Amino acid sequence: MPIVTVEMLKGRTLEQKRQMAKEVTEAVSRSVNCPKESVKVIINEMDTENFAEAGVLRCDKK
Amino acid sequence: MPIVTVEMLKGRTLEQKRQMAKEVTEAVSRSVNCPKESVKVIINEMDTENFAEAGVLRCDKK
Amino acid sequence: MPIVTVEMLKGRTLEQKRQMAKEVTEAVSRSVNCPKESVKVIINEMDTENFAEAGVLRCDKK
Amino acid sequence: MPIVTVEMLKGRTLEQKRQMAKEVTEAVSRSVNCPKESVKVIINEMDTENFAEAGVLRCDKK
Amino acid sequence: MPIVTVEMLKGRTLEQKRQMAKEVTEAVSRSVNCPKESVKVIINEMDTENFAEAGVLRCDKK
Amino acid sequence: MPIVTVEMLKGRTLEQKRQMAKEVTEAVSRSVNCPKESVKVIINEMDTENFAEAGVLRCDKK
Repeated sequence: MPIVTVEMLKGRTLEQKRQMAKEVTEAVSRSVNCPKESVKVIINEMDTENFAEAGVLRCDKK
Repeated sequence: MPIVTVEMLKGRTLEQKRQMAKEVTEAVSRSVNCPKESVKVIINEMDTENFAEAGVLRCDKK
Repeated sequence: MPIVTVEMLKGRTLEQKRQMAKEVTEAVSRSVNCPKESVKVIINEMDTENFAEAGVLRCDKK
Repeated sequence: MPIVTVEMLKGRTLEQKRQMAKEVTEAVSRSVNCPKESVKVIINEMDTENFAEAGVLRCDKK
Repeated sequence: MPIVTVEMLKGRTLEQKRQMAKEVTEAVSRSVNCPKESVKVIINEMDTENFAEAGVLRCDKK
Repeated sequence: MPIVTVEMLKGRTLEQKRQMAKEVTEAVSRSVNCPKESVKVIINEMDTENFAEAGVLRCDKK
């Protein structure tokens, strides 16, 4: 029943998400020894004006 | 002060959300014995390309 | 597949959690029209030194 | 490496978010004694139909 | 900068967590095409009395 | 009603948390223009075996 949430910036293609969901699920299932069917993956996409590092919004970063 | 977050796929109507917020708040308030005024509910809606089970994105599921 | 996370202060009994899980699941299932089997509930308990309102930790509140 | 998530209703300007990211990062860095570079801030904006207090959606509040 | 949070029940060994962190990071880095250094993994472990499916706490499941 | 969650490694003193809750609340209140009373802060502390960067658990980092 692991629930995996991935927070990342917007801009990935559907194919990248598809690949990520598949590979992350396999990685969790293999390392933690649980059936793939029990793994859920949630993708949370952020706008560049909603993420900051070192106090600077990503949309302001040069 | 319970804070309840509900993550679910997009597609519910406003009336369904309204009902859910009301009923979940009552359920928490009753079972945990706190005033309804202290319960907050956050709804997080996901696109079908942002949720996967068994490594398969919901938008790819047949 | 709704995933419900409840954040609240420590101190509830097992019986209160049991009741809450049951009632919240029914409330979500009924209002959003999904099978009870698809609803997951996660309880996140906080110490009173890990929650603040108005800038004051709960453990400091008189 | 503190990761700060701020959940709030939609409607703030870019300038307000910019200021918030800056000030929150400084507050965390100062009080917890870590470099500003290690602080990340994620802003999660909610629609008024996705937040409820006392069982009432914000969009229904008069 | 993907931030990956894995919520799962307590009981995994340190070696399982170590393997999971490594493999999940590689899976995200590869599929989303970002440096491994930018991937963070947070593990959130739950007690069996803090997780429910179908309204039944895991600790009550036979 | 901003809800601020701070995820960080264990090891901060009560005084550091107290200071952080106070300063973060003021920072959010000031920048986003909302009453301090409406700001909530949740602190989520992680063990060093539950956080990884670049695929390496913090407890394994030299």
